[in-house]
Amino acid sequence: MNKIAVPLFLALATSVSALAGEGMWTPDSLPKAQIQTQYGFTPDAKWTGRVQRAAVRLAGGCSGSFVSPNGLVLTNHHCVNSCVQQLSTADKDFIKTGFLAKDDKDEIKCPEIELNRLDQITHVTARVKKATEGKSSEDYGRAEKAVKSDIEKECVGNDSETTRCDVVDLYHGGVYDVYKYHRFQDVRLVFAPELAMAFFGGDPDNFNFPRYDLDMGVLRAYENGKPAKVADYFPFSKNGADAGELAIIVGNPGGTDRQLTIAQLESTRDLDLIPTLFLFAERRGLTEQFRSESDEHWRIAQNDLFGIENSYKALRGRLEALQDPAVFALKRKQEAELRDFVNADPARKAKYGAAWDEIARALGTYRNIETRYKFIEYGRGIGSKYFDYARALVRGAAERGKPNAERLREYTESKLPSVTQHLFSTAPVYPDYEKVKLAWSLTKLREWLGADDAFVKQVLGKESPEMLAKKLVDGTQLGDPAVRKALWEGGADAVAKSDDPFIVLARNVDPQSRAIRKQYEDQVESIIDKNSELIAAARFEKYGTRVYPDATFTERFSFGVVKGWDEKGVPVKPFTDIGGAFAHATGSYPFALPESWLAAKDKLNLQQRLDFVTTNDIIGGNSGSPVINRNAEVVGLVFDGNIHSLGGDYWYDERLNRTVAVHSGAILEALRKVYHADRLADEIEAARKR
Amino acid sequence: MNKIAVPLFLALATSVSALAGEGMWTPDSLPKAQIQTQYGFTPDAKWTGRVQRAAVRLAGGCSGSFVSPNGLVLTNHHCVNSCVQQLSTADKDFIKTGFLAKDDKDEIKCPEIELNRLDQITHVTARVKKATEGKSSEDYGRAEKAVKSDIEKECVGNDSETTRCDVVDLYHGGVYDVYKYHRFQDVRLVFAPELAMAFFGGDPDNFNFPRYDLDMGVLRAYENGKPAKVADYFPFSKNGADAGELAIIVGNPGGTDRQLTIAQLESTRDLDLIPTLFLFAERRGLTEQFRSESDEHWRIAQNDLFGIENSYKALRGRLEALQDPAVFALKRKQEAELRDFVNADPARKAKYGAAWDEIARALGTYRNIETRYKFIEYGRGIGSKYFDYARALVRGAAERGKPNAERLREYTESKLPSVTQHLFSTAPVYPDYEKVKLAWSLTKLREWLGADDAFVKQVLGKESPEMLAKKLVDGTQLGDPAVRKALWEGGADAVAKSDDPFIVLARNVDPQSRAIRKQYEDQVESIIDKNSELIAAARFEKYGTRVYPDATFTERFSFGVVKGWDEKGVPVKPFTDIGGAFAHATGSYPFALPESWLAAKDKLNLQQRLDFVTTNDIIGGNSGSPVINRNAEVVGLVFDGNIHSLGGDYWYDERLNRTVAVHSGAILEALRKVYHADRLADEIEAARKR
Repeated sequence: MNKIAVPLFLALATSVSALAGEGMWTPDSLPKAQIQTQYGFTPDAKWTGRVQRAAVRLAGGCSGSFVSPNGLVLTNHHCVNSCVQQLSTADKDFIKTGFLAKDDKDEIKCPEIELNRLDQITHVTARVKKATEGKSSEDYGRAEKAVKSDIEKECVGNDSETTRCDVVDLYHGGVYDVYKYHRFQDVRLVFAPELAMAFFGGDPDNFNFPRYDLDMGVLRAYENGKPAKVADYFPFSKNGADAGELAIIVGNPGGTDRQLTIAQLESTRDLDLIPTLFLFAERRGLTEQFRSESDEHWRIAQNDLFGIENSYKALRGRLEALQDPAVFALKRKQEAELRDFVNADPARKAKYGAAWDEIARALGTYRNIETRYKFIEYGRGIGSKYFDYARALVRGAAERGKPNAERLREYTESKLPSVTQHLFSTAPVYPDYEKVKLAWSLTKLREWLGADDAFVKQVLGKESPEMLAKKLVDGTQLGDPAVRKALWEGGADAVAKSDDPFIVLARNVDPQSRAIRKQYEDQVESIIDKNSELIAAARFEKYGTRVYPDATFTERFSFGVVKGWDEKGVPVKPFTDIGGAFAHATGSYPFALPESWLAAKDKLNLQQRLDFVTTNDIIGGNSGSPVINRNAEVVGLVFDGNIHSLGGDYWYDERLNRTVAVHSGAILEALRKVYHADRLADEIEAARKR
Repeated sequence: MNKIAVPLFLALATSVSALAGEGMWTPDSLPKAQIQTQYGFTPDAKWTGRVQRAAVRLAGGCSGSFVSPNGLVLTNHHCVNSCVQQLSTADKDFIKTGFLAKDDKDEIKCPEIELNRLDQITHVTARVKKATEGKSSEDYGRAEKAVKSDIEKECVGNDSETTRCDVVDLYHGGVYDVYKYHRFQDVRLVFAPELAMAFFGGDPDNFNFPRYDLDMGVLRAYENGKPAKVADYFPFSKNGADAGELAIIVGNPGGTDRQLTIAQLESTRDLDLIPTLFLFAERRGLTEQFRSESDEHWRIAQNDLFGIENSYKALRGRLEALQDPAVFALKRKQEAELRDFVNADPARKAKYGAAWDEIARALGTYRNIETRYKFIEYGRGIGSKYFDYARALVRGAAERGKPNAERLREYTESKLPSVTQHLFSTAPVYPDYEKVKLAWSLTKLREWLGADDAFVKQVLGKESPEMLAKKLVDGTQLGDPAVRKALWEGGADAVAKSDDPFIVLARNVDPQSRAIRKQYEDQVESIIDKNSELIAAARFEKYGTRVYPDATFTERFSFGVVKGWDEKGVPVKPFTDIGGAFAHATGSYPFALPESWLAAKDKLNLQQRLDFVTTNDIIGGNSGSPVINRNAEVVGLVFDGNIHSLGGDYWYDERLNRTVAVHSGAILEALRKVYHADRLADEIEAARKR
């Protein structure tokens, strides 16, 4: 399942039709009548509020849920994989062995995980629209940014450590809401199975079904050094998911593009997906070979490789959707219908008629600058954690000196806690691996911009990418979180005086980098934003309000049923069982079961359902979401979509798209019989009994 | 410059318009009137015949020319790079140091280079058409194959060692000719500069200009253990290429696709180019990292990596052409015009009208089978030299037992010398590198066909790709040419009895592999061939015969001028000079000049022209072609095209497309002053004086 890995630079929009299963609904506008008709169930305000607050978001790009009053959080292994890797050393490789905290005191802090619980949604559409009204595209973008920063700062107040506020742009400018979250930054690892079981079948089986994975991970939120007390959480259901049952998924789908214009879809395909895939494929090959060089390299690179392979497969699925002439034909038809509707009325035409061509024009500009934008500003060209730190320090120092509303959006007051969490993280940085990644990305910078490009010459000088990477990495102190903290706290002065080679580099390239970003924001993003909003308004006029907004990595509810599908005439059953995992094991990576499972085989209930599929409409970012029943009990744990779901970025096809989840019964069976994690299983089951 | 690296599975066709510069003309149908008009020059039969025979083809995918009566052959470094690498060892790395034979006896045989000199062209159109007349698609394909095999066998007679005959399909079935070649298989390395100079600027500068490369290599054809005596060869011109001068390039362009149907272009883009590029990108990353691991790995993988990067860049250029809406618009217009012409007359409509839809239908079948075809039959899935040997041994044994006309095309009598040259080659095979390549390709096999695919299961069994690769490579004897020779000569019996693991594997997968090939040939290739021929005939009816056929890796003449171009308003001059190489050197790979050049700097004429561009219409396969003047004297040596020329597969744009060549004066300057290769320079200059 894809974590949010590759923002594709393009705007979001709204979706019109809402077939059974389709739709990612905001908590404050569930399609109650439709749910009642389809499933005989009406979520009331109390139910909805409880579910809203029992679910959590992992700020890095996943979802999860509280499953006990003591802050226990259930999510996926692949959502905590980076933490598991960061806590591992050459001697203790938790990726291989798994991790189990025997007691509270064994629970170890994850250096980079932040949890967000959505506590409140406030409508701010009128305020935002008033601020941008009548503005031309450059000013429009600036005004929008300023008012959003103000709203977020007001919402956070003085509680920035525990409160996070994000203005969310729904229906692409149709609705603006501010989402107020409770923020947990002390998040500790409680349990992770071996990667071999969490990701049984590995990349070959990723996005496939039948599956036999226990893709689970357990965290605990802490506050003031103690397990956080939470009022809302999901108990486990007694029996777990059953066929035909209503399945509700609450989580944070990262982004969909279901209402892009034809020009945007073509631009996505040719300028974003294809070049990105070329780079992913190359980096994948590089990382595979690096990983194969030693056990230590395997451990260091494993999590990165998972992310690369996962994104690569997901983006290839999206590309295939955009290579399907039938999909484009449908999109063309829908666009033509809406444009005909607009053009049929002179007032509407005057208001909305030019929006599509304006977007196409902005994309023409994007075509000319996108490579430079992605390589210089967006992080493709100087690919190293050290450089990311250096840029955050250089920019953070500069931006904190400005009024909140004038800052780059990622350095506004409400965003600073996330910046410092990453900056002060104790996660290890591996210099040899950084050299490889950095040298490679510098080579790509030179390749895509050209050896004679002024920016390339400025960065490389007379050195080869390999030499420069070695010099920078060998010379930097930024691997030490204390050094980073001192520079952050020292502010503009400390940064200006630093002769750390990465700080020097980040300082030197910042003007060009800001310039290309400004060009992108003023000449592309603002124009697309503004005109997408016009199209969204036209769509509201035509189709009314029974629509759901494109995904925005904010909390959404999805309603579906536990159900298999028909694969080219062959029915695919909705469940696998634990016996199937043993039947599919070959003993060879990635189809080798771990020792713990082989040893426990005799004790296990081989008929226990292991994984299952549902018709719910989800997308990357939903990883780790609970699957709950109408009683708000956990029946499963989302970890993937089937191969057909990869086109879900652009449309939903109920016949084929499926969510893939771990069965709640398998979680308890494994915790007790394989991992002897009775403390944990007891806590989960106690929650049911309360 | 791309050697022919990636046949893209699609048929060739004809081209219509012939702008100045455009056109790859067969020796027997030069557009004389047009040349006279444009350049005031008329090639007569004597001139043409001499040029035809002074040029040579490198059977592996390049061009070259005789430059002395003693069989001396001038071509590119990147055309002899694999030989230079094969002759190198850990102690003597000729890629790094360059190679110079001080005397005849120092000239070392290249294990896998075959030269072909085109001696005779005979028209066989009537015979081929008679054999296929009225046949349906499957029978059509078989009949065509049979008659071609017969023609080739008759043409070769009993001289298969020194004679090679290929039936060439021009204008996609409009014309069939049999090309009779003199074959040289004893080809020795005489000179190669350091890779650092031959490929100065490396991948970043590849397909770019200005350039500063001495991409030259010198071979010598031998017969009966002595330098071959050749009657036709090119002397060097006294001054080399000058601006505005008529430049004639004679060489073997590998293939163009200038008259594919829209359906074929779309299929090429989506099913061939894009997936191929994903695989190239990934293998590139893998190979880059492998190469970086040690000096020995660098030496072993360098040539492969060059080939991968070169193809990757070339194919990306082609993809960009097919992503350009303007190109597709033009192609659609041309197709519509021809279809309108066909449909305007009932007789023509009955004859040709269905051809486009038939091709589209065959491509629908191709869409369903192409991945299996490429991975199982076309070599993507089991990627190792050992497997290539094993397959050639298994198939060669089976095919030689059949009548010539019924064999797979690559095992007909006339093709066997090429098979055995590769099979008996003494070029080293590096087991560790083979393991890496094989494991990777097996991983891709599993990824693209799926872990549950029956063929994948048959190949992998319960093993991981890495384990299987290790087992196969550790267990094989096929790295030894004597073992391969014994198996070839032992024939079907020896192959059946062999328990070499690669032979066993090749035997086991052969039935499935042949089956998918048969399906491809019967249901895709034959239908496309037959219907492309109909479209070619319709095009002849409409446009007459003043057209040139798409490239077919056979000898072609191209006429152009030495001329720069205008790059977005900035004029690019046609020449660089030796001083420019020094000015552009940074001292870091790949912009580091070799020691020999740094040491010779004071003696060199820095104003000597080094590289230059012309308007000639060339494509991959033309590498190593001589650039000659109207007196049939060498003025340069083709080694690349500029970045715009990469779209040349689909169309030619004289404003932008340029051939890139080494200046003949720089060749002599470097041979004398840098490499002290006076024996060689004397031989070249003596040819001029005769």
